[in-house]
Amino acid sequence: MTHSASDRNHRSVAPRIAVDLLGGDDAPAVVVDGALQALTADPDLSLVAVGPPSVADAMVGALPAAVRPRLSLHAAARGVAMSESARRGADRGTSIGAAMALCASGEVDAVVSAGASGVIVAGAVMTLGRMPGIRRPALTAILRGVAGPLVLLDVGAGMQVSPTDLTGHASLGAAYAELVAAVEQPRVGLLSVGTEPGKGDRLRRAADAALRGHTFPGRATYVGLVEGHDVVIGGRADVVVTDGFTGNVLLKAVEAALTIASAAYPPTVVPRAAVLLGVPATVVVCHGAATGADLASGITLAAQLVRTNLLDRLMPTVVTLAEVGS
Amino acid sequence: MTHSASDRNHRSVAPRIAVDLLGGDDAPAVVVDGALQALTADPDLSLVAVGPPSVADAMVGALPAAVRPRLSLHAAARGVAMSESARRGADRGTSIGAAMALCASGEVDAVVSAGASGVIVAGAVMTLGRMPGIRRPALTAILRGVAGPLVLLDVGAGMQVSPTDLTGHASLGAAYAELVAAVEQPRVGLLSVGTEPGKGDRLRRAADAALRGHTFPGRATYVGLVEGHDVVIGGRADVVVTDGFTGNVLLKAVEAALTIASAAYPPTVVPRAAVLLGVPATVVVCHGAATGADLASGITLAAQLVRTNLLDRLMPTVVTLAEVGS
Repeated sequence: MTHSASDRNHRSVAPRIAVDLLGGDDAPAVVVDGALQALTADPDLSLVAVGPPSVADAMVGALPAAVRPRLSLHAAARGVAMSESARRGADRGTSIGAAMALCASGEVDAVVSAGASGVIVAGAVMTLGRMPGIRRPALTAILRGVAGPLVLLDVGAGMQVSPTDLTGHASLGAAYAELVAAVEQPRVGLLSVGTEPGKGDRLRRAADAALRGHTFPGRATYVGLVEGHDVVIGGRADVVVTDGFTGNVLLKAVEAALTIASAAYPPTVVPRAAVLLGVPATVVVCHGAATGADLASGITLAAQLVRTNLLDRLMPTVVTLAEVGS
Repeated sequence: MTHSASDRNHRSVAPRIAVDLLGGDDAPAVVVDGALQALTADPDLSLVAVGPPSVADAMVGALPAAVRPRLSLHAAARGVAMSESARRGADRGTSIGAAMALCASGEVDAVVSAGASGVIVAGAVMTLGRMPGIRRPALTAILRGVAGPLVLLDVGAGMQVSPTDLTGHASLGAAYAELVAAVEQPRVGLLSVGTEPGKGDRLRRAADAALRGHTFPGRATYVGLVEGHDVVIGGRADVVVTDGFTGNVLLKAVEAALTIASAAYPPTVVPRAAVLLGVPATVVVCHGAATGADLASGITLAAQLVRTNLLDRLMPTVVTLAEVGS
């Protein structure tokens, strides 16, 4: 933690959030658009726009005078190219690295970016560290379906994970379901290719055994293996745990299927933003193809997590994980 | 191969197919229903119903007299329970094991089952062997989308695969796209979490490198990494290769998303049957929750593959793979 709980409680009334002007396929235009939407919608929100001064200056010029005092600027000359190492996400000369540094020093409460998730994750871990007991953070999304909200993690942070990573993610996901999605007794499932014990690859078999013996926070329980359709239809689990490769592929495919299958509002809504659980800060990752509205909803999510003190409220879960792991 | 090409050419006029009466969530009722539908629709088709004599007798009783000569029976007392080892799929006392044995001895041209895919795959490999150059077969599905057909493999046969498995599957999938889906110059993509080289886990990075140097059959080419949405939307690749864990999870999720999102006929159609490529026989696996109509379409697919001599026409691809592998 980079600042005390009382500091955070004070700031949580009026969240201060760093937005990465250079993250996303359509940056900086959509980020500027999203930031202006969020500032207009939330009168207690302050943003720090991180990016090239020329872009930030144009942004300020577009703002209504009443909103202008809640936007400040932090210069960072460049973004991280797709061809560069993800470790560039910790370089303070880049917009995402500078945003993470602002978060580490307590100048902002959260970071929002639509940049490459690998870069954001590397930047967050290298700059902010990890929660005790967590080796890899997990990108965590809430799908809203007819059977209720479903927390899916990891949707893209960790490509090579261990059973211990998955039990840690199961605990974080269960706590997130209770605290943010208002699920009272989260049922946690492990994604596999069938529901009978033993289905899946070596990782799934080992993780299934580990989850059966795992102590969950609150009133969460492990319900065993679930399948691809359970993520979409819901009803069998409130939290579904998988590795970041499978979760990313799954989320993108489901999003596309729901988009093409129905011009009408589909019964399951795939989120365009995910929170990075497992780092001691609030980091929200928006879809690379995010629109201005998507960026605004990512900023709104970050503000909500800051206001509701998610990080402090995750502490009992984290302490339990650290004790089990030690 | 268990019989000569001339034998197969002879039989291909009137395919003889073994159907597993005890495979599937709703077996035997849906299998009986599907078999009767297929026999009625295709006057040159013969079926061997493999299962308990009591079920088969009832089936014969339900048949119109004109169709009856094209159905024969092969007794197998029991199915394979979910709790049993997949190796039971090679036990001739089970319906799937007996069906595979009929195929190995040349008494039938193909096997169709809606049983557990792991059991069918184990039964096929242990009874029929593998094609030269192929270590693991791949369950292969054709998705029909607005951008044209898309061949996806593996959708559930191999849980732990190597880069060499994936290059073999890429060749088989490309040949299948040309021969069965009428794609003239198949573009082959590797499923990952982004399109830039280096995206994904260790398996994807190694497989991407292997595929860049891989010699494809016919006019197929490797187009690099594709993402989850590319499987659904199409347009970037005609063949998408992935491990059986990811492919299975993806297919089930997309199927559910398309089902719930639209009561109308969706623009992408997820198949309810997949063919097992890489074994020297025609084996079609239907969805575990298959209906009678699904079983009938699985039987029709098997009959089509027998009639068009898919196995013989895959030989140039297989020979190339075996030479590369040796």
